Amino acid sequence: MRLLIFSIFICLAYAKIREISVIKSENNIETDFIDRKGYRPNWRDLDKRPLPEWYDRAKIGIFLHWGVYAVPSFGSEWFWMNWKSNVTKYVDFMNKNYPPNFTYQQFAPMFTAEFFDPAEWAQLFAEAGAKYIVLTSKHHEGFTLFPSKRSFSWNSVDVGPKRDLVGELSAAVRERGLKFGVYHSLYEWYNPIYLQDKNASFETHTYVDTKLWSDLKQLIYDYKPSVIWSDGDWEAPDDYWRSTDLLAWLYNSSPVREEVVVNDRWGKDIPGHHGDFYNHADRFNPGKLLDHKWENAFTVDKLSWGYRRTMKIGEIMSDSQMLFQVVSTVSCGGNALINVGPTKEGTIIPVFQERLLLLGEWLAINGDAIYDSSPWFSQNDTVNGKVWYTCTKENYNATHPTYPPSANDKILAIYAITLEWPKDNWLTLGDITSYLHRGTYQVELLGNKGVYLTWKISNGKAAIQLPDKATVRSKVAWTLKFTLK
Amino acid sequence: MRLLIFSIFICLAYAKIREISVIKSENNIETDFIDRKGYRPNWRDLDKRPLPEWYDRAKIGIFLHWGVYAVPSFGSEWFWMNWKSNVTKYVDFMNKNYPPNFTYQQFAPMFTAEFFDPAEWAQLFAEAGAKYIVLTSKHHEGFTLFPSKRSFSWNSVDVGPKRDLVGELSAAVRERGLKFGVYHSLYEWYNPIYLQDKNASFETHTYVDTKLWSDLKQLIYDYKPSVIWSDGDWEAPDDYWRSTDLLAWLYNSSPVREEVVVNDRWGKDIPGHHGDFYNHADRFNPGKLLDHKWENAFTVDKLSWGYRRTMKIGEIMSDSQMLFQVVSTVSCGGNALINVGPTKEGTIIPVFQERLLLLGEWLAINGDAIYDSSPWFSQNDTVNGKVWYTCTKENYNATHPTYPPSANDKILAIYAITLEWPKDNWLTLGDITSYLHRGTYQVELLGNKGVYLTWKISNGKAAIQLPDKATVRSKVAWTLKFTLK
Amino acid sequence: MRLLIFSIFICLAYAKIREISVIKSENNIETDFIDRKGYRPNWRDLDKRPLPEWYDRAKIGIFLHWGVYAVPSFGSEWFWMNWKSNVTKYVDFMNKNYPPNFTYQQFAPMFTAEFFDPAEWAQLFAEAGAKYIVLTSKHHEGFTLFPSKRSFSWNSVDVGPKRDLVGELSAAVRERGLKFGVYHSLYEWYNPIYLQDKNASFETHTYVDTKLWSDLKQLIYDYKPSVIWSDGDWEAPDDYWRSTDLLAWLYNSSPVREEVVVNDRWGKDIPGHHGDFYNHADRFNPGKLLDHKWENAFTVDKLSWGYRRTMKIGEIMSDSQMLFQVVSTVSCGGNALINVGPTKEGTIIPVFQERLLLLGEWLAINGDAIYDSSPWFSQNDTVNGKVWYTCTKENYNATHPTYPPSANDKILAIYAITLEWPKDNWLTLGDITSYLHRGTYQVELLGNKGVYLTWKISNGKAAIQLPDKATVRSKVAWTLKFTLK
Amino acid sequence: MRLLIFSIFICLAYAKIREISVIKSENNIETDFIDRKGYRPNWRDLDKRPLPEWYDRAKIGIFLHWGVYAVPSFGSEWFWMNWKSNVTKYVDFMNKNYPPNFTYQQFAPMFTAEFFDPAEWAQLFAEAGAKYIVLTSKHHEGFTLFPSKRSFSWNSVDVGPKRDLVGELSAAVRERGLKFGVYHSLYEWYNPIYLQDKNASFETHTYVDTKLWSDLKQLIYDYKPSVIWSDGDWEAPDDYWRSTDLLAWLYNSSPVREEVVVNDRWGKDIPGHHGDFYNHADRFNPGKLLDHKWENAFTVDKLSWGYRRTMKIGEIMSDSQMLFQVVSTVSCGGNALINVGPTKEGTIIPVFQERLLLLGEWLAINGDAIYDSSPWFSQNDTVNGKVWYTCTKENYNATHPTYPPSANDKILAIYAITLEWPKDNWLTLGDITSYLHRGTYQVELLGNKGVYLTWKISNGKAAIQLPDKATVRSKVAWTLKFTLK
Repeated sequence: MRLLIFSIFICLAYAKIREISVIKSENNIETDFIDRKGYRPNWRDLDKRPLPEWYDRAKIGIFLHWGVYAVPSFGSEWFWMNWKSNVTKYVDFMNKNYPPNFTYQQFAPMFTAEFFDPAEWAQLFAEAGAKYIVLTSKHHEGFTLFPSKRSFSWNSVDVGPKRDLVGELSAAVRERGLKFGVYHSLYEWYNPIYLQDKNASFETHTYVDTKLWSDLKQLIYDYKPSVIWSDGDWEAPDDYWRSTDLLAWLYNSSPVREEVVVNDRWGKDIPGHHGDFYNHADRFNPGKLLDHKWENAFTVDKLSWGYRRTMKIGEIMSDSQMLFQVVSTVSCGGNALINVGPTKEGTIIPVFQERLLLLGEWLAINGDAIYDSSPWFSQNDTVNGKVWYTCTKENYNATHPTYPPSANDKILAIYAITLEWPKDNWLTLGDITSYLHRGTYQVELLGNKGVYLTWKISNGKAAIQLPDKATVRSKVAWTLKFTLK
Repeated sequence: MRLLIFSIFICLAYAKIREISVIKSENNIETDFIDRKGYRPNWRDLDKRPLPEWYDRAKIGIFLHWGVYAVPSFGSEWFWMNWKSNVTKYVDFMNKNYPPNFTYQQFAPMFTAEFFDPAEWAQLFAEAGAKYIVLTSKHHEGFTLFPSKRSFSWNSVDVGPKRDLVGELSAAVRERGLKFGVYHSLYEWYNPIYLQDKNASFETHTYVDTKLWSDLKQLIYDYKPSVIWSDGDWEAPDDYWRSTDLLAWLYNSSPVREEVVVNDRWGKDIPGHHGDFYNHADRFNPGKLLDHKWENAFTVDKLSWGYRRTMKIGEIMSDSQMLFQVVSTVSCGGNALINVGPTKEGTIIPVFQERLLLLGEWLAINGDAIYDSSPWFSQNDTVNGKVWYTCTKENYNATHPTYPPSANDKILAIYAITLEWPKDNWLTLGDITSYLHRGTYQVELLGNKGVYLTWKISNGKAAIQLPDKATVRSKVAWTLKFTLK
Repeated sequence: MRLLIFSIFICLAYAKIREISVIKSENNIETDFIDRKGYRPNWRDLDKRPLPEWYDRAKIGIFLHWGVYAVPSFGSEWFWMNWKSNVTKYVDFMNKNYPPNFTYQQFAPMFTAEFFDPAEWAQLFAEAGAKYIVLTSKHHEGFTLFPSKRSFSWNSVDVGPKRDLVGELSAAVRERGLKFGVYHSLYEWYNPIYLQDKNASFETHTYVDTKLWSDLKQLIYDYKPSVIWSDGDWEAPDDYWRSTDLLAWLYNSSPVREEVVVNDRWGKDIPGHHGDFYNHADRFNPGKLLDHKWENAFTVDKLSWGYRRTMKIGEIMSDSQMLFQVVSTVSCGGNALINVGPTKEGTIIPVFQERLLLLGEWLAINGDAIYDSSPWFSQNDTVNGKVWYTCTKENYNATHPTYPPSANDKILAIYAITLEWPKDNWLTLGDITSYLHRGTYQVELLGNKGVYLTWKISNGKAAIQLPDKATVRSKVAWTLKFTLK
Repeated sequence: MRLLIFSIFICLAYAKIREISVIKSENNIETDFIDRKGYRPNWRDLDKRPLPEWYDRAKIGIFLHWGVYAVPSFGSEWFWMNWKSNVTKYVDFMNKNYPPNFTYQQFAPMFTAEFFDPAEWAQLFAEAGAKYIVLTSKHHEGFTLFPSKRSFSWNSVDVGPKRDLVGELSAAVRERGLKFGVYHSLYEWYNPIYLQDKNASFETHTYVDTKLWSDLKQLIYDYKPSVIWSDGDWEAPDDYWRSTDLLAWLYNSSPVREEVVVNDRWGKDIPGHHGDFYNHADRFNPGKLLDHKWENAFTVDKLSWGYRRTMKIGEIMSDSQMLFQVVSTVSCGGNALINVGPTKEGTIIPVFQERLLLLGEWLAINGDAIYDSSPWFSQNDTVNGKVWYTCTKENYNATHPTYPPSANDKILAIYAITLEWPKDNWLTLGDITSYLHRGTYQVELLGNKGVYLTWKISNGKAAIQLPDKATVRSKVAWTLKFTLK
């Protein structure tokens, strides 16, 4: 009997090994998905992984939505879906400007990228103060910005730019000392294999097994991204996508296992529950502390992530609006991932350059309040809603980066960032008052180093007299730094 | 011990079943590849299958090479490969007419097919006297003329024609009572998955498992082709392609198992050895009987299978050259598969229409010597090299269609087809002489029914006096019919 | 009083001279239009000019309709006008294949002519037996195939081919010893200046003065055409076009004054009345002698002069139909101008090559009956409608090339060309009978030199026994040559 | 003798009348160029015409360079000339991105203007505070943005936009109460008729007589422009262009004779000498008073007038740089004509919208110092180089708009505009000091109405204490208004 059990065990193992070997041979990859020593492919285990420290310190990333949608460059990067769903303005646009049976794929040859200079982009991003870049390696259209082996003739090397855009940008960005990450859509709107699985209620996995994993592994092996920004997960549960298998392999065995961070879009109901950091919905900005690292991905063009040729200036975030997102996000423990959509010719249009450089100028003055900062006890000041706090601590809190300071933390500086300059030059604050009472603080405005400000306290509010505005360098948000004398 | 063996057997079976079920689920196909009752997946077994009779009776097919190469329409359908292999005239053509980084894929949107009228084509083919049509469902470029699920964005529905060309033509051709077949290239020059397998010395099968079989089965299920004309097999052995598996399934279980015929291009060294009929090399025409059914695939444009815009009339087969191929091929037991290349706009150019209609006119007069005919004892007359024989028999020889008549065969008529009209109107023949001696034959020219011809015999040669040429209807080849009085 | 009259005369002369000098200076041309020694600018005078002999001797010309219409290549060379006149099939074609606001002018960049090899064309025309070529230097669309100074950005050097097509072809054609002529449309459908004149009931001449004459003179000075084949004249009277002024200058002073011939399309009601030769309507073929030299301009594609991509072989003249036109035309004193439409890529498609080369083969055998021939007493045989006569005379009749022989003419040979081979090999003729009676003639078939034919005469008809058809070289029309022994 | 002289006179008159009538009939225009009552066609006479008052009052115009160059959108609007002159970067651009024989004209179909909404543009220009608009009706490329009758197939209705851009924009701009003007290039780089005249050392006038005047008169009759902004004059003298003839007709008889203003580019050596206002060179800004009305035409993209796709934000004028141009120009009696280049799709890109709207915001606060203003005694302050003066007077000086106030002028207000805010909030001025001494002035900052400022005077300099900067609305330039109490 023992023999029987043993032999059954042997045989089951054989079956398993054979299954694995099939997959291995298919992908020409030696590494085994099932790593005995590391994270097991379940969320409970995966959730235990600590967040790589670089990501929380970075705070500012730049997001790039670039793809074939940059050719029609109309409406948004959801052009294809909106058109095919008969949204009037898209249908009208096509009827007016293209022959009747023009297909979306036929836009691809016009995605020329002739002016794409990755070094120039990287310089811009560095000057903007960003610490990491996330590029759409593949959006829902399925077109890959790298020579995906499973997307023959529908990628940027075979059609359009004729360049490995992911490869070129990753190299240039790293040359500037920034981290490089990839956005990657799990689903593809019109990939027939995906649709076949979908029609089978996701009980078949053909798309995942023959396309999705191969692409992701090619991306990871070839470009070693520091961020995998997953998207397009919502139609199917995570076990359709085999997300936990992928992540276990990613954390245990992949070449980026030390550094990589992933977001939370890995299947229906997963966002906000699993992942190294959470994006929740697009443009998520809760205005309060969360107990897990998160990121506010927002776009400078308020109406689209991809480039639109018809942008009106009023639809573009002002400097103030952009800084509100950055400041409130970082204050609440998030990272700000700021999106701009490059053009089909490979440029980042002047107004986006302007916004990013303004951010860079602001960070050059106020960066101490942002990079490597941590949430303080209060975030949005109770009395002055235009003010947000951060702080810096002696020791970085790797385990819970979004938690307020604990009893053990030594706070080096508190920062109060105001998005509005008071006309009378007195900035009223509520939540800092009790600290100032202790009387040992000195206050200065970042950019006006050495000019110590006076304050008065009454009714539990502190009013700090700002420097004469004619002497101040920042234009759209101003940081008070409170340090112990 | 017995228990051990038994349990091992159980487990192996489990492993096998699991493997099968994976493939089944992947393709959403109920049928099992391993058919217990029919042909086993090895050549010895497969070679036993009798040739479906319709194919040998048909004799005349039309071959269509249509694809993205119809856009550059330069050199040949091997444009892409020749260009990328730096053949001078192709490189020059591209340098002269296209921007530097133009890719082959970017020709696809110009494959417009706006004038493609499948009913009109089918009528032309019927008038040409063809009994079956073979269309390139996919050539080596990988572009499919049907909406292949595994060729997303690189097929005729997604780019270019925006039509299911295989579907439309198959329906129209059948409407005219003709059989419809598909050409299908096993390899794809530049498919990265194929190249990956090739780089692995064909020890991996990823391309075959994730792309090739899926395409073929989609083709077979959706269009039920009567011919599968395989090509592009030569780089890899048949076990890489899993050819015997496919054929076993095709013969046993596929929806076309009764009628389908396949050629012999199923792997290195297979041509001329296995398959329902043999093509050997392109334009194969041995001039003698073979012991296996074969087909002479040749092209009216002597320099290319795909349409060329620069064709000179001297490069196009004359009526005589075309009829020589047809007559000599049928005489030797072959079928003639006559190729024309349609244009990117979906037309068959006038000179091809003219050749095909001339053939149709000729067959309307001389068809008795072609359709349903069998090889006679002699093929090419020993004395008069311009003459080829066929015959018709009371019973069709299904088992060995290319064999000469046997003792049991009752010959209904012998046909001697001459490709040249003698200036003195006396046609000299060698191989028929002994039969005429028996004195019971009557001879007439097809098209001049009821006009019985006289002959004289001397030195073992028969000289038959042809009718006055001014009374004769055929223009380029003439058939004498010998029947017993 | 005399002084007054004199001075008025002086002043009028001054005014006239000034007017002329304005025109001269405008065109930078030294020659004066009013030539004192030559033809005066009125039809009575112009009609006196004798026809340059080369033209009547040539008999066979090739006509080429090539322009931007070769791009849509649909319907006919009147595409633009038909589309804009809302002819359904043109409107549908545009709606189906182009964006809504596509203009005809936007076809021009696609007129690529990348395969245009003028030497190859010239060789084809020479092999076809043509003696002159007429190319559309400008059709009604206004697009010029030469760098017209008055058609900036709407000519073949500025857009599309980027080549001087008139210049290149004229050089190549002359290299082969053929004459070169230009077709030239007087009106331009959509030229606003022309339309302005038209709206002014042709009482203004702005188009003629600022565009038309300049173009024509540029053509004549730069390419020295031997034929000016005028067209597009019918909307306005000849005095609007200033036709007689132009012709007087052409005959008196132009660099082609010795050799040039012009047709008859020089204004409303002019065709058939004035010009070196008459075209009357397109495809004019009266079937009888006319008293003025004429030309039958016909097109091998029976439905269009410009290339059509949708041609069916049944819409193309058969060899017989083409030879009927040639033979009947020459018999009646006309020239045959045989049109083919080249493609936008600069090729002459195979079926046109085939027709032209068949003509060349035929003329190589039968050319004696065509070139340098003259009308005989009879044209179409009274008894056998398939037979047409020509003859050759010792002296060429320069004054009245279309007249039958006169009493003084010494006839060297009579030719009877039959378009049908009689099934009994006996060719019956009516009109030659009385000559044969004289008994001194010998008869042979061209191509069967030295084989003298027998005949019998009864009931006023001659029946000539043709050679055995199996020995005859011509395929579609056969020439009997009658000469005095 | 008297009779002789008289008759000669009569005849000369006849010759003249005939000449005129020729031109009249050619253009279908009833008006005679030689107007007996008005300005004669010589500069002395033409220079006497007073400047229409609206122009001097307007001060702010917007200049639009739009044409086929918006398609390559590379380098500048001189793309064609630079490319053809073998400037390396242009040649490289073409070699890299286009087929070898691509011509400039073939860009035209890609000039699509699909998003051009003239009402939206007009609203933007109105919000920017502009009072007139100048659109390139034709640049040196010769392509007209209206359906020029003399530019058949090379205008925006025949190719590209398929719209009358001049017509549509003029209507929309007037709807907003703004004046509409046209830029018009006299020469066309590659027009063969122009080049023919040029090769004749401008001794022939064919281009002028058959093309230039017709175009200009069509423009004037059809669109009634308030400004004719001539350019491209420099290769030929004004008598080649027949400029004085045109202007005499324009001032005397044209439909815009009351309102039209023209600049000074009417022939070699004419700029700065004749015209209603002078542009001198592009971007002319002398920094001092001139004795003739002038205009500073400058472009927001510092490197180009036409749109460039590769613009860097650092190449675009900052708000300060733009306001420096506006302020210094108006202070010195000039108008500011601010150029932006629209895109080929018909948009004005966001950064240009932003600059124009910033200007509009600034003018909404500071417009009193600009519109309807006059030069003051001083322009650029002697002590504080960042400050420029204007003033408003009771009576507008129509005759000499650029002169400083005279003894008779009653000055209503003096404006000192500073481009820099002093860090200590004290603005030091030199040239106003003596006026303030008189002690009767009050000073306020525009935008801070009712807040009267204090000042102190020492060493001949006035120091004015500005309001607290936190209370100030303008961002980039600030206006002090001095009025008598």
